[in-house]
Amino acid sequence: MHRTAAIISQGDEIVIGQTLDTNSRWIAARLLDAGVVPVEHVSLPDDRKAIASTFGRLSAAVDLIVCSGGLGPTADDLTRFALADAMGDTLVQDGESLRQIEAWFAARGRPMIDLNRVQAMRPSRGTVLSNLHGTAPGICAKLGSCDVYCLPGPPRELMPMFETFVLPRLEPDGRRTVRVRVLHTIGLGESEIAARFRSAPGGDLMDRERVPLVGTTASNSVVSCRIRYEGTLAPAEAEALIARDEATIRSLIGEAVFGEDDETLASVIVKTLKARGQTVATVESCTGGLIASQITDIAGASDVFRSGWVTYSNETKVREVGVPASLFKGSAGGTESGAPGAVSREVAAAMAAGGAGEADADFAIAVTGIAGPGGGSAEKPAGTVYVAVAGRACETDVRRFAFTGDRAAVREWSARAGLAMLWLTLSGRRGVRLLRQVDGAPVC
Amino acid sequence: MHRTAAIISQGDEIVIGQTLDTNSRWIAARLLDAGVVPVEHVSLPDDRKAIASTFGRLSAAVDLIVCSGGLGPTADDLTRFALADAMGDTLVQDGESLRQIEAWFAARGRPMIDLNRVQAMRPSRGTVLSNLHGTAPGICAKLGSCDVYCLPGPPRELMPMFETFVLPRLEPDGRRTVRVRVLHTIGLGESEIAARFRSAPGGDLMDRERVPLVGTTASNSVVSCRIRYEGTLAPAEAEALIARDEATIRSLIGEAVFGEDDETLASVIVKTLKARGQTVATVESCTGGLIASQITDIAGASDVFRSGWVTYSNETKVREVGVPASLFKGSAGGTESGAPGAVSREVAAAMAAGGAGEADADFAIAVTGIAGPGGGSAEKPAGTVYVAVAGRACETDVRRFAFTGDRAAVREWSARAGLAMLWLTLSGRRGVRLLRQVDGAPVC
Repeated sequence: MHRTAAIISQGDEIVIGQTLDTNSRWIAARLLDAGVVPVEHVSLPDDRKAIASTFGRLSAAVDLIVCSGGLGPTADDLTRFALADAMGDTLVQDGESLRQIEAWFAARGRPMIDLNRVQAMRPSRGTVLSNLHGTAPGICAKLGSCDVYCLPGPPRELMPMFETFVLPRLEPDGRRTVRVRVLHTIGLGESEIAARFRSAPGGDLMDRERVPLVGTTASNSVVSCRIRYEGTLAPAEAEALIARDEATIRSLIGEAVFGEDDETLASVIVKTLKARGQTVATVESCTGGLIASQITDIAGASDVFRSGWVTYSNETKVREVGVPASLFKGSAGGTESGAPGAVSREVAAAMAAGGAGEADADFAIAVTGIAGPGGGSAEKPAGTVYVAVAGRACETDVRRFAFTGDRAAVREWSARAGLAMLWLTLSGRRGVRLLRQVDGAPVC
Repeated sequence: MHRTAAIISQGDEIVIGQTLDTNSRWIAARLLDAGVVPVEHVSLPDDRKAIASTFGRLSAAVDLIVCSGGLGPTADDLTRFALADAMGDTLVQDGESLRQIEAWFAARGRPMIDLNRVQAMRPSRGTVLSNLHGTAPGICAKLGSCDVYCLPGPPRELMPMFETFVLPRLEPDGRRTVRVRVLHTIGLGESEIAARFRSAPGGDLMDRERVPLVGTTASNSVVSCRIRYEGTLAPAEAEALIARDEATIRSLIGEAVFGEDDETLASVIVKTLKARGQTVATVESCTGGLIASQITDIAGASDVFRSGWVTYSNETKVREVGVPASLFKGSAGGTESGAPGAVSREVAAAMAAGGAGEADADFAIAVTGIAGPGGGSAEKPAGTVYVAVAGRACETDVRRFAFTGDRAAVREWSARAGLAMLWLTLSGRRGVRLLRQVDGAPVC
């Protein structure tokens, strides 16, 4: 029975901060979907003793351990050794596994390097999981009553191996039910949402003794509200409880909710535009393609997105989307002091209108601003960003934002603001003010 | 003395896989830079007991704990309570901290919600770290001989607090030296690099008993080689050892090395173009702005990047960068069977040449392919991507790739391939074949 799980990610590069661990998050989400509750993630260096002792500690605390990484052919790949240590077992060569590795190289017309032979080693009481996308087989073993799955680190190898070999073998507690519903919002801060939740009929929604549990997480301008049930109710009853809380939350902050669960601003925009047969274009300066890449990351985006521009220079803004040259400082039409300049309400509006026209799109999002660290002034410090949304059938909405943080943060916030403003337009809620917005009269 | 550190990230949303923890990586890299070695990362749910017991376990094992998250105003923010539990201490209200939180709200013309008062609470034997970018002050305390710093979760609050209050208080062991050098490569697989390292004069570079330690990490097409010294040598001697190994590595795989330490393909491209007074444009189909956004993520990119296009539809490719309409299937000039189609060598080459011309840039990167999951055929399955680099003074280099993985993976690999091919052009190494490349005769 797998009630609880721990997730280990393996590698010096993760622990010293050279590489971001994305596997643990993916594994956690898949486990929870299957009804197994992740209760801890641990990242460890390439240290056989540390890995072995963590296997030991966690196997006494949870029903399932999923480990990623450390199964490669090189001397810093120590997971199989540490697992055998924790089991008090020895490694043996798995003949079938060795044949598969040899076949993998043969199929690619490459000689198998002797080094790869170690990848066919497994604890004598363990079994091997085939890798159809690389040379590192996985390993499945038992540590006391805890099931351990060791998977290769590269996501494109780990993900199919998890789906094929781990998922079908999970044994969630049939008497326990786990259900999570997430509502994503923009326009309200985390404390404002918490204050409204306190006023819920029946008491504070976020009380830690309450069933289901309600929690919030802020990521830039998006605050996500999570309703989570874990207990012995039948699935239908758990879902009814979650539906009840969802209705309460929507009654308290409904104007800010834009999506559920795996949805993102980009995905709800693509879904909405597709349903209406409409299209969007992007004209980006300081976000430099981030908005376009977030929209096109959604499968099916080609139905709603056809053209985008990264107009990083003034000349490109003029040439590609017809922004009047007179709007730029030092131009023929503008004077050094009189023209609004590249980072202005006027230029943002002209970029959006020009992009929509050139692309013959129903909507266009435009962004111009100062991502920093350089380029700011007293009047327009780094973090000053104008975002505009133009549409065939509506006035152009332009807002000024004052973002803080480094270059990457300002770019992320700006992209989020662009998507949020388009969503407000699409959902008829332009009256909603966004976080960090400093002016721009919302049009209702 | 802070020799070793553990990093805790706090929050249900991380443990259940809703949110990706990026703080731990950032903290780890900063600690290592300062000479303190991170030895474990742990992510925990909003569970007061679990957090308290992890504080206890780690404080016995390391000299320093840095914890992020769980300091917000809501009922699921439990770090301060768990820390007090682990210390056997009680929480008191910090007057100065309360005044700062009140001032934060006052400065924004917003009323302080009662809920935020809890953020001024700290263990009676702890101290408060001011937050200049939000309402959550940090906490500093001692657990036995281990120093504990609790920082707020939002990166834009965490980062400045770490720089201001944690970094200056770190006490790395003056008798120990930690140095890391990373060399980033493209074009060679991890096993090929490991095989070459085995043939190093003096024996296998990756032997785990060797000083310094050498390790490798693969991330899409980039394999990074890490040389790490940790011991009692003087800094100059440690650096000499690292320089020796770096020279050995360069002699073994030098043709594949493109950058060091924090450098990325995008950053070396921006640096190189800037030094030469040259520019680049991008014309992206399946990557949808990802390459442009990676280039413009580098501060100073405006000197080398002026124009980019996201030409997601055939019409946009024709209209914006002059790809001949006859190249597309079903067009007036092409026949259903005879024209090469949107995903072809010919279209990639025309996109690159057209983009360079329209932008008047020295180079252009173009990508057209099938990111999936839909859109593939037997001849061109999802993952088929053509990447082209055109330049004023060189032939256009076009290569076909067969990537695997989901939509996001194919897009990431494609963007990486585009940057890698431009770098090969800039460094005169077009002869290097890239991973997953299936044709395209490299031009030397």
